[in-house]
Amino acid sequence: MRINRKRLEESMEALGRVGATAKGGLNRVALTDDDRRGRDLLVEWMREAGLSVTVDQMGNIFGRRAGSDGAAPVMMGSHADSVPTGGRYDGQLGVLCALEAIRTLNDRKAATRHPVAMAIFTNEEGARFQPAMIGSGVMSGKIPLEDAYNARDRDGVRLGDELERIGYLGSEPCIPRPLRAYLELHIEQGPILEEQHLSVGVVEGIVAISWSRLTLTGVQDHAGPTPMRIRHDALVAAAEIVRGVREIPRKIGGDMVSTVGRLDVTPNIPNAIPGRVSLSVDLRAPEEHHVTRALGFLDRLVKEAARVEGVTYELDHYWRVPRTHFDVEVVDTIEEAAKGLGYGYRRILSGAGHDAQYMATICPTGMIFVPSRDGRSHCEEEFTPMDDIEKGANTLLLAASKLAGAA
Amino acid sequence: MRINRKRLEESMEALGRVGATAKGGLNRVALTDDDRRGRDLLVEWMREAGLSVTVDQMGNIFGRRAGSDGAAPVMMGSHADSVPTGGRYDGQLGVLCALEAIRTLNDRKAATRHPVAMAIFTNEEGARFQPAMIGSGVMSGKIPLEDAYNARDRDGVRLGDELERIGYLGSEPCIPRPLRAYLELHIEQGPILEEQHLSVGVVEGIVAISWSRLTLTGVQDHAGPTPMRIRHDALVAAAEIVRGVREIPRKIGGDMVSTVGRLDVTPNIPNAIPGRVSLSVDLRAPEEHHVTRALGFLDRLVKEAARVEGVTYELDHYWRVPRTHFDVEVVDTIEEAAKGLGYGYRRILSGAGHDAQYMATICPTGMIFVPSRDGRSHCEEEFTPMDDIEKGANTLLLAASKLAGAA
Repeated sequence: MRINRKRLEESMEALGRVGATAKGGLNRVALTDDDRRGRDLLVEWMREAGLSVTVDQMGNIFGRRAGSDGAAPVMMGSHADSVPTGGRYDGQLGVLCALEAIRTLNDRKAATRHPVAMAIFTNEEGARFQPAMIGSGVMSGKIPLEDAYNARDRDGVRLGDELERIGYLGSEPCIPRPLRAYLELHIEQGPILEEQHLSVGVVEGIVAISWSRLTLTGVQDHAGPTPMRIRHDALVAAAEIVRGVREIPRKIGGDMVSTVGRLDVTPNIPNAIPGRVSLSVDLRAPEEHHVTRALGFLDRLVKEAARVEGVTYELDHYWRVPRTHFDVEVVDTIEEAAKGLGYGYRRILSGAGHDAQYMATICPTGMIFVPSRDGRSHCEEEFTPMDDIEKGANTLLLAASKLAGAA
Repeated sequence: MRINRKRLEESMEALGRVGATAKGGLNRVALTDDDRRGRDLLVEWMREAGLSVTVDQMGNIFGRRAGSDGAAPVMMGSHADSVPTGGRYDGQLGVLCALEAIRTLNDRKAATRHPVAMAIFTNEEGARFQPAMIGSGVMSGKIPLEDAYNARDRDGVRLGDELERIGYLGSEPCIPRPLRAYLELHIEQGPILEEQHLSVGVVEGIVAISWSRLTLTGVQDHAGPTPMRIRHDALVAAAEIVRGVREIPRKIGGDMVSTVGRLDVTPNIPNAIPGRVSLSVDLRAPEEHHVTRALGFLDRLVKEAARVEGVTYELDHYWRVPRTHFDVEVVDTIEEAAKGLGYGYRRILSGAGHDAQYMATICPTGMIFVPSRDGRSHCEEEFTPMDDIEKGANTLLLAASKLAGAA
């Protein structure tokens, strides 16, 4: 049993046109009109594939193909939102490979004991509403529904209001549900599979992640007549911190990474000394205690930079996801599938958070990676060769069928 | 002959309410609806004071009180726009003191040989449209009218279109005109007058100013799975440059100042490595050659920071204003006025650019400073004691009357 490569490719093309950017990327940020159009198209396809479609209180979309008994479903899925200048693979590839796997089961009229289902999770990227993975976070009981509804974007727009506006505020409770397994295919977003000429990553788990936000408050003043000796420049302190954050992984060792991805200056005009700067710090490591140590470094770094420049600060470590270990049986099943199909594969750790992270807290979970050209993602240049996608999708189909108890 | 302090204070109150912020500051950015409302109020007052009001092609507003012969006017003026979170003194104080001086001449039915006029210049701050002082820049022939019209704000809105929209696209040619003198009262925006307990600054000139813009282009990528070893982070390079710019004055010596006031990150989300950063560099010094040397430092700093991080860049030194020396006769007249009135004064250099800078290229020009509490400006906390304002306004009135040939 193999997926239909041509059909998958056509679906990728069609969905990729919704929110396409001029440079071949994707701008389909969560709960925008384009997100709605993408969801509408997917729901149409899911209905055409005979799935019973439901939407929950967080706008997560589910489609279910009946099994031969009422057992808990094997669910495949990912997300359909993108970052503002993102690519056509991050997220939507996992959704479309799940759909293609189900379409293939339909082609073969294959019966499974467990139902086979697919899921499209809301706001995985966290580009517009924080935190990221909010749809699966609520479903797994880790984020209160009301907190999620009250998340606001930069313009102050509420997530709950946007869900309603685009017509995806569903009625089904967003709570943990009995699942045989959750499987997510996703692009690696790193360089390892490509460097080693492999098609499939058998993901063993996800690194520990911490997000912090920092606001520095100095003294806003005119850039001309204010002597250097009396300045308290929030951006100068921020620059010291950006540099210091860059150095943290070197001090910690291992495969830790650190990033200041967001930085906003107030008033942000050429002739005013910045009075306020807010910025984000993203820390990740395969070892939980490395993140804990890194946060200690960050605390001291911020304190010292603020002291030197004479600015005040608020530092909030507001989001932390522990190291995720995927289910041994699911990971082994994925590995056997890739091996049995004769594909080049390796076990790998995910450096990015995924909905699978939250799903792993409520059911046996595993992930499949396919390569990212030059290791790049969250950019318009994102690319995965179709040969690798086909292999990933076949691995997903085989592993899901096995877990679902195919006849 | 003395100005009417109570009337001046009431006008300051009334105009300060247009675009007032909750914290007592001012947000009346150029060519916004609030700028229009502020202009409308000023024009109404100018007409009530019997002035003949005209508006030129750049939206600069002029009001003229007839002299006893047709000679070139003595013009007083400043600007009425503010930075986004600015104060109630920068700009509008100079406009209102000019108006108050004219109202006082009216009270006394004082005849002058030269006409006495006032001016309100468009977009002095450069907060929304760059470069700053664009209204006086065009009037002095230093900026082509078409370039000014085509300046765009961050949302891509054209200056020319906004002038028309708010009803201040006038028909009078915006060209140099014969003027006996130009006098501008302004807050110091620095700490010197306050530190020395003086009320009036007799401004001898303006420091040399250079504005550069820099765009750094790295590789946008996902903050999680991208190992530190393959990163090209535009914000890390930018942080190095912000720190380096801070150090330039120490290397150059003298009273040089340097500021990175604006910095924009793309895509500016917590989990993406910044692919692009653009920032501004503002360099100022009393000595022209110090600015030239500083630009050399900046070139090398940017080149090295970009090399180390492996990012590309475009650096554009797009605006330079040479050291301005004000007219000896005008400066002496101002000094004699302050001295004759018995006020505490000193000669001083302006660290900020002003419309007077461009006016000095077309007519004899001078400026009067009043103190800024804590040297602060371009912030809501901007404040000048009313006693000092009264003294500054009387100095302006006396100097202008003298230059206009008061009977």
